[in-house]
Amino acid sequence: MSNALNRIFNAASIAIIGASNDPAKRGNQAIRKLRADGYAGAIYPINPKAPEVLGLKAYPSVLEVEGSIDVVLVCTPAKTLPAILAQCGEKGIPGAVVLAAGFSETGPEGEAIAEATLAAAKAHNVRLVGPNTNGVFNLHNNMNMVGVQDVEPGNIGICSQSGNMMLAFVTEAKRRGGVGFSSYVGVGNQLDVTLSEYLQYFADDADTKAPVFYVEGFRDGRAFLDTCREVTQRKPVIIYKSGRTEAGQVAASSHTGSLASSFALTRGLLKQAGATVVEQSDKILSIAEGLSKLPVPMGGKVAILADGGGHATVTVDALVDAGVELASLSPATIEKLRSILPAAASCVNPVDVAGGTDDNPLISAACAEAILADQNVDILMVIGMYGGFAARFNPALLEVETETSQRMAALAEHHGKPLIVQSVYNALRTRPIEALKDAGVPVFVWPEPAVRCVSELIGYAQARRRNAASPLVRPDEPAPSGTALVDRVVNTGRDAFYEYEAKDLLATYGIKVPGQFLARCEDDLTQVSTALGDAPMAMKIVSQDILHKSDAGGVKLRVSGEPALRADYREILANARAYNPDADVHGVLIAPMAEPGVEVIIGVVHDPMFGPVLMFGLGGIFVEVMKDVSFRALPMSRADAQEMVEEIQSSKVLDGVRGGLPVDKLALVDLMMKVSQLALAHPEIKEIDLNPVILRSDGYDIADARMILNSKGH
Amino acid sequence: MSNALNRIFNAASIAIIGASNDPAKRGNQAIRKLRADGYAGAIYPINPKAPEVLGLKAYPSVLEVEGSIDVVLVCTPAKTLPAILAQCGEKGIPGAVVLAAGFSETGPEGEAIAEATLAAAKAHNVRLVGPNTNGVFNLHNNMNMVGVQDVEPGNIGICSQSGNMMLAFVTEAKRRGGVGFSSYVGVGNQLDVTLSEYLQYFADDADTKAPVFYVEGFRDGRAFLDTCREVTQRKPVIIYKSGRTEAGQVAASSHTGSLASSFALTRGLLKQAGATVVEQSDKILSIAEGLSKLPVPMGGKVAILADGGGHATVTVDALVDAGVELASLSPATIEKLRSILPAAASCVNPVDVAGGTDDNPLISAACAEAILADQNVDILMVIGMYGGFAARFNPALLEVETETSQRMAALAEHHGKPLIVQSVYNALRTRPIEALKDAGVPVFVWPEPAVRCVSELIGYAQARRRNAASPLVRPDEPAPSGTALVDRVVNTGRDAFYEYEAKDLLATYGIKVPGQFLARCEDDLTQVSTALGDAPMAMKIVSQDILHKSDAGGVKLRVSGEPALRADYREILANARAYNPDADVHGVLIAPMAEPGVEVIIGVVHDPMFGPVLMFGLGGIFVEVMKDVSFRALPMSRADAQEMVEEIQSSKVLDGVRGGLPVDKLALVDLMMKVSQLALAHPEIKEIDLNPVILRSDGYDIADARMILNSKGH
Repeated sequence: MSNALNRIFNAASIAIIGASNDPAKRGNQAIRKLRADGYAGAIYPINPKAPEVLGLKAYPSVLEVEGSIDVVLVCTPAKTLPAILAQCGEKGIPGAVVLAAGFSETGPEGEAIAEATLAAAKAHNVRLVGPNTNGVFNLHNNMNMVGVQDVEPGNIGICSQSGNMMLAFVTEAKRRGGVGFSSYVGVGNQLDVTLSEYLQYFADDADTKAPVFYVEGFRDGRAFLDTCREVTQRKPVIIYKSGRTEAGQVAASSHTGSLASSFALTRGLLKQAGATVVEQSDKILSIAEGLSKLPVPMGGKVAILADGGGHATVTVDALVDAGVELASLSPATIEKLRSILPAAASCVNPVDVAGGTDDNPLISAACAEAILADQNVDILMVIGMYGGFAARFNPALLEVETETSQRMAALAEHHGKPLIVQSVYNALRTRPIEALKDAGVPVFVWPEPAVRCVSELIGYAQARRRNAASPLVRPDEPAPSGTALVDRVVNTGRDAFYEYEAKDLLATYGIKVPGQFLARCEDDLTQVSTALGDAPMAMKIVSQDILHKSDAGGVKLRVSGEPALRADYREILANARAYNPDADVHGVLIAPMAEPGVEVIIGVVHDPMFGPVLMFGLGGIFVEVMKDVSFRALPMSRADAQEMVEEIQSSKVLDGVRGGLPVDKLALVDLMMKVSQLALAHPEIKEIDLNPVILRSDGYDIADARMILNSKGH
Repeated sequence: MSNALNRIFNAASIAIIGASNDPAKRGNQAIRKLRADGYAGAIYPINPKAPEVLGLKAYPSVLEVEGSIDVVLVCTPAKTLPAILAQCGEKGIPGAVVLAAGFSETGPEGEAIAEATLAAAKAHNVRLVGPNTNGVFNLHNNMNMVGVQDVEPGNIGICSQSGNMMLAFVTEAKRRGGVGFSSYVGVGNQLDVTLSEYLQYFADDADTKAPVFYVEGFRDGRAFLDTCREVTQRKPVIIYKSGRTEAGQVAASSHTGSLASSFALTRGLLKQAGATVVEQSDKILSIAEGLSKLPVPMGGKVAILADGGGHATVTVDALVDAGVELASLSPATIEKLRSILPAAASCVNPVDVAGGTDDNPLISAACAEAILADQNVDILMVIGMYGGFAARFNPALLEVETETSQRMAALAEHHGKPLIVQSVYNALRTRPIEALKDAGVPVFVWPEPAVRCVSELIGYAQARRRNAASPLVRPDEPAPSGTALVDRVVNTGRDAFYEYEAKDLLATYGIKVPGQFLARCEDDLTQVSTALGDAPMAMKIVSQDILHKSDAGGVKLRVSGEPALRADYREILANARAYNPDADVHGVLIAPMAEPGVEVIIGVVHDPMFGPVLMFGLGGIFVEVMKDVSFRALPMSRADAQEMVEEIQSSKVLDGVRGGLPVDKLALVDLMMKVSQLALAHPEIKEIDLNPVILRSDGYDIADARMILNSKGH
């Protein structure tokens, strides 16, 4: 399949189905555009009525073309597709780019055409880009099937569900300068080829350093995650997912019909797969520019070399906001800077030359040399007015300033450390600025986009190392005792486990569960102290017909001693009968009260797009009101579990509150990994909900556990 | 004073102190720049050695100049200032712009020069801009004392503590087009004229529609707030405060030495004063553009007219992120749109014309007309590819598309509703796009900056209405009983109130405090049930020498009955003696345990820059770990108190958790207003801390109260 995409993007010959002599038609414009951009391959107009189109010999169908054809650009309406694809199959054409709309997005009739088209594509072994795409371009092949003009060549690949979004990138890049594109594909309805395959293409394309995905909906979520995890070991993948909010999803679905998983979930899973998730469309291009140009840093410590305290302060604020660490320069570096710079300069990070380079810009390069050589520095940001010394003070400085740019870029390359420049002179495109860009250094007018590049670059480096070092933990064979337990519940025909069954299953996977005792009759209660000791107990009704146990008066807490246990047992049963006279009551579950601690939730759900997903969050207000939770796809790595714990906004609460001890995070991560193992070993279980788990400095208690089965237990 | 600034910004004559024939000197460049920009006023070079400078007659000092002088631009070193200002005073010159550095920022010697300079300015009645400024320009007077080239004229005023930041605005505006500037002042060290006076100037300047302040540190915080509150009734004020983070403050102080109040506090106070606070420097210009051009909307409901679902979805996501409400179009509007647009179009908000205007852009104007006429719509955003129909489809459409732009702008003006356009064709500067800009419509390439304009515009409109409608509540005369109480505490020589005294003072201001009883000896405890009833009690040590009562074993909770009260009394006293044998123990305070509810904190502090400030937040984890608090300066309005309650991130917790009732917000706001009254009436009290206040659906309990006095009670 990747071979078909390769031949589409690098086509040596293109047939235009619906080629036309009418300049207003796409079948005419496409040929003119291909020629105008200098496409060197063969172009075959297909038109059953015209002998030639735009001076080229036209053919009634692809079958009459003598040479081989790599791709057809289909400009004819939706309903013509099945027949065209049959001919493509016969001719051995691997790919078709289908512009027409009028498929699934238009209702039942279009849906039928879509089905027939897909069936024909499969039967005749033709891969489809689109339908409802505005095409494909590959600037390194001069192959532009899209009408867009004046695209700057470069190393960013675009895979987009919106042609306008590509247009916005292209026009913005042109205006900025120094950034450009390798290839573009408009994915349209993803009827056949889906996002994971496009991602694989960009991964293998040597001209693409950073693919950008504008995604409205995934059709192959799990495959995309798997591909992305593999690809991000080689290059960064930048993703904007639209329809992040509920209202946004409504707006999106009205024009694509895609099914959208919650954005918080999608974002967690994409981050896990190593992707760089961008949440504002106006930030995509600058982040892609940075990631496509800069080397992967060894660490995350940033040094600033500034002229102009104002911009240095703005930069520091933005770095702190983004959670980036400021490097502490070594004493030797500080000493070196002191020897270079005037007395008024600041020689700690942020370094401020305080006008010390006005007369000789080369001093900037000497400072950069000292800073880049410092082992405490991973990334250098040059901030303020670099690039404008000649423009501002003395035109005679132009040569030396341009040489300084080249020297700084070479120093960064020599040390293998990223160099990013922010300059108020960027918009003026002075020669020193253009020299930086020519040497592959990203330059921005404002500190914030530069900082975003830095923080996303650090995030990418961390994710890449994390995924390389911490493997996904796939399940062993299910424990036989676990399988037996699950089978037993499935065979009862119930939808859900009883709490004690859920806890028994957790114990099978080495998870510590509190002692528990199921009282089937009042006289069973005499055994409670023998079984569980004399601590205060929690009592809960066990009935598949009573879901909300508290509302039914089915819960009693802090019950001590047999007389009280008996009295509360009777009351629970009476309450249950009053609540639902027909309820099938299985007994009353008794367990020691958990010690107080920090309440958290660990859950597993099966997402329709991405499959099994673990959720983690603080309990109570934090999950219910603040929705402060993190998600990862299963299987996950131990590092993923650690990140889930740190990622929630309220994670500081786990480090101890009001002088309390921090919770045992090792035990928490261990618990999360074991729950993952259980969920993967028993896919019949659709949903797991441990809520609350009470964390303490010396371990945890699982105070409640729910497990829900797939319908029919499969 | 504002007269002096008026004469500086609108000078009819300028003397250049330190005028020079050396083209590398500022005293030469300044004269050339003034002439190059067409300054029509008189220019007087001052140079005791040269008979003429650049062909102009030069004078030994300002005293020899025949005509009157509005402002001197001082290009000579710091130490020359006192003598120059004396001459300015003699000549009756109201203002001096001082470029030199070398004042307070350089150490004790510079500090002495600064003091002498300020003393001379005061003595001779000359107002100083700077020192350490790069100057002033006023494009509406062709008066450019700054070296900057190519500034686009327009309606944004800039007041900046960084010359580079102004340069960044100016170059970025030039690149974007459609946005420009009225005047600029670099405030430098603010030795004499401070930010509040500059703000007053921009408020009165008819050419400035929106002043932008880049602030590193305030020297006149409270005056600035007062001026800002008044000015924002007339025009928006946009503020970027640098040094927002601790690291940023360190970076800032290394080059300005300004004292920085916490950013969260500063932001709260500026918002209260009606300012538009921007936290990323790269967003300032687009927000200023929007606010300078758009009318103040009547409400906050936004309609979207889109061509291209992709950008509409991005826009909706960004609007929801910003908390902006989407308008529900009226049935009549929907009907009207249905009659105009093709079947595939979406005629609810976001409206998507789905290609329905490709052949005739005027249909866009018809849609805009229908939407703008809808009473449910306050603001219209045109989103996607408007402005590119001719460029994309058919050059013949150019005239009609340009006409459409003019028509849409006129419709928006007719309805008095803001119109903002996002277009992927903006960067191409097509004629229809330029027609929009000529008509004062802001146009952006990306949805997010357009959304930021919209949300900040709505925020400004709300703040303006809020401040107009809800007056600051200034204190009545202090209650005589309150004054007596405060005096009594002051006279003891203690730094702080005892808890029961603080609660007594609260009661004086009509604040409900729980019953309380001070036991001075064990036998007093027999009276507790008579005084407070039989509910469980909280007991707390009362001692000025024991600040951390719990740590000292000085607190007992849920104590019931006289025997238990007596036992715990003895234990508290024993613990206190063990903790600090020298502690002066005043007694034990007893009060009924508060009913459970939501814990909040209400505090008052005296900020060194802004004066008395009220703080509000949720208690426990939320304030201690999450730092989730809001601030307002006192006096404040009732609406301010309401906003403080809604502004904290955890405010949803107040609306009821786990099916619980919402707290009584009316009682909460009432309490906050009364605490404000108390704080204003007794400025001797430096700090008030009600922590926790326990909120319920039926009111509140103040569980603890601390008040700290100014040293010496003043």
